[in-house]
Amino acid sequence: MNNFEFFCPTKVLFGKNTISELPKLIDKSHRILMIYGGGSIKKNGVYDQVKKALEGYQLFEFGGIEPNPKYETCMKAVEMIKQENIDFLLAVGGGSTLDGTKFIAAAAKYEGDNAYDAILVREEPVKDALPIADVITLPATGSEMNNGAVISRLATNEKLPFHSDLVFPRFSIIDPQVTFSLPQKQTINGIVDTFVHVMEQYCTYDVNTPLQDDWALGILRTLINEAPKVLAEPNDYEARANIFWCATCGLNYWISLGAVQDWATHMIGHELTAFYGIDHGQSLAIVLPRLLKNQKVSKSKKLAKLAREVFGVNETVDLKAADKAIDNIEEFFNSIGMKTKLSDYEIDSMDAAEKIKDRFNKRNTALGEKGNITAETAFEILKNC
Amino acid sequence: MNNFEFFCPTKVLFGKNTISELPKLIDKSHRILMIYGGGSIKKNGVYDQVKKALEGYQLFEFGGIEPNPKYETCMKAVEMIKQENIDFLLAVGGGSTLDGTKFIAAAAKYEGDNAYDAILVREEPVKDALPIADVITLPATGSEMNNGAVISRLATNEKLPFHSDLVFPRFSIIDPQVTFSLPQKQTINGIVDTFVHVMEQYCTYDVNTPLQDDWALGILRTLINEAPKVLAEPNDYEARANIFWCATCGLNYWISLGAVQDWATHMIGHELTAFYGIDHGQSLAIVLPRLLKNQKVSKSKKLAKLAREVFGVNETVDLKAADKAIDNIEEFFNSIGMKTKLSDYEIDSMDAAEKIKDRFNKRNTALGEKGNITAETAFEILKNC
Repeated sequence: MNNFEFFCPTKVLFGKNTISELPKLIDKSHRILMIYGGGSIKKNGVYDQVKKALEGYQLFEFGGIEPNPKYETCMKAVEMIKQENIDFLLAVGGGSTLDGTKFIAAAAKYEGDNAYDAILVREEPVKDALPIADVITLPATGSEMNNGAVISRLATNEKLPFHSDLVFPRFSIIDPQVTFSLPQKQTINGIVDTFVHVMEQYCTYDVNTPLQDDWALGILRTLINEAPKVLAEPNDYEARANIFWCATCGLNYWISLGAVQDWATHMIGHELTAFYGIDHGQSLAIVLPRLLKNQKVSKSKKLAKLAREVFGVNETVDLKAADKAIDNIEEFFNSIGMKTKLSDYEIDSMDAAEKIKDRFNKRNTALGEKGNITAETAFEILKNC
Repeated sequence: MNNFEFFCPTKVLFGKNTISELPKLIDKSHRILMIYGGGSIKKNGVYDQVKKALEGYQLFEFGGIEPNPKYETCMKAVEMIKQENIDFLLAVGGGSTLDGTKFIAAAAKYEGDNAYDAILVREEPVKDALPIADVITLPATGSEMNNGAVISRLATNEKLPFHSDLVFPRFSIIDPQVTFSLPQKQTINGIVDTFVHVMEQYCTYDVNTPLQDDWALGILRTLINEAPKVLAEPNDYEARANIFWCATCGLNYWISLGAVQDWATHMIGHELTAFYGIDHGQSLAIVLPRLLKNQKVSKSKKLAKLAREVFGVNETVDLKAADKAIDNIEEFFNSIGMKTKLSDYEIDSMDAAEKIKDRFNKRNTALGEKGNITAETAFEILKNC
């Protein structure tokens, strides 16, 4: 096991009707900015629940954070924060709203000219940030229990991550009931996002972390069992709760402490989203199987373990078991209605391979747990997507 | 899944040579009391490592916290804290030292006459506590990542728990190397303690927590695989690291969020320790198998799952599989050198059953996840121990 440091001060309230507990968690002295997305929270009743819980508070609103939250939009929120002397941010929505809020919290306290270049491009440590919290409504990104966010910029077709302990949510409220009304597509995207988060943390090389590996496979087993239930019966509270908790635990790092992580699928997927606008979950489902095939030899031990302990594959040769793991993963994605080819979205794989190769070449990109996924390797992976 | 609230702000530093990072974690302005136990840290080099790391700090010392830390001893530390204006406590040792330190932190800020009665007997909420942190040297109690402690009082042969978010360690340093020199008996006690912590949180009735259950069984699987390695080769770093991380995760509640917990084995075990002075781990290994037999019908679903997924038992009838789970658990304890009968310690089981029945009767005790383990049931369990 590698040395590790772990810290997550976020308080989690999980369960039915937990939104009503907001007043216990925020002091009335705050000037709160409630940040949300495209308005789905107005349709599913979450907006009303939050407003009711925070009656009598100094509550301001900023709507319109997009999926793959845009720098340009975030900066409009920063302006409003300065005008209204806001001192607490409450994200109400999915991972994009929360990621946007994390960036807004840091940008609002950034003293230089260009928060985008400083925080996302030059990756300067965040020195100060407004306190944030969230009512998370989409099981997917795990952003509700970590210190990371991914921000896109329209001007340059870029999508970049940042991390800071200062943007851990003070609390996260997770009421699985709010996911009953999710469009099927978003439920599926979230399940795939969670699955791939686990793969990025588990499927590398072995450094003797048997408990963490067992737990990672435990999330995959649970997802595979619970996914058909929520798709068949969207109002199945227990299945919704289990899927949501899998999503949160998929990226709070409990499964990968002391282990080696990958994240190449995400970095290539981000480019597909940036260039072609396909959903994050969709991009991951396209890249993962081809990336695993490409890296099969190096990842064979973990893939073989996954094949045996998740899919019950009875095959003693690791490389053969690894192939079956990859096939089973793609079949699972397809079985829940997730497509896994660029052609399914009418994207030309050679066009994607060329564009992303060029961008990675310019950045000297070297991805994956061994840093061996260069622009050329990404090209090989993408042309088979 | 039941609603739950989770919070653990402790920063964990895990791995080789992490004690040297102490100066990054404590400000030099503090007047620090280093609290330790019977002096084993002076033999294994931990004392010297801490002193070296904190050179130049205002460092005071209080030694002599016993296994099953005593109220009487803790209050001597409180006296010293007041005399020396101590404002930060650093526990260096095992779970007993850390538990004692948690109580000392709360008692030092308690304004009434009798901290024992207030905090442990009347269970009044702790209103203030000194900040604490730890260098934990024994994989067992999990105290390094939770807000609980168990304190004994000599005067009355009592052993009582308390909880408060104010006594979460600010940080916990876990260097598995410090466990190389542990006496075999303590290693075994710690493995059993961890195993039983997991059982107390897992082995109740099912409320649809598949991920948490999978993770609980993951700790048991890992313990069973790694225990023989540390016993055969005490300097096996990887096995020591895995055992330690199992112990920490055995009681940071990650495996039981939203699940139903038991803790009857611990409460009965505490009485055996209070009356006869046997080690905590030893007491648990005696009580658990007999308690599980007594509660087999009510726990059969979880026991059967455990039999199949941990011990590979091929038995479709739950009650029969449950029996095999209990037998396998006792065999595992015996296989690592842990005895499981009161007679092994020359304690008369009828004497123990009578004494503990009397005490539980006086307290109107009703233990277990269904509150059905009364004084009479405890008597039945103990007479078979």
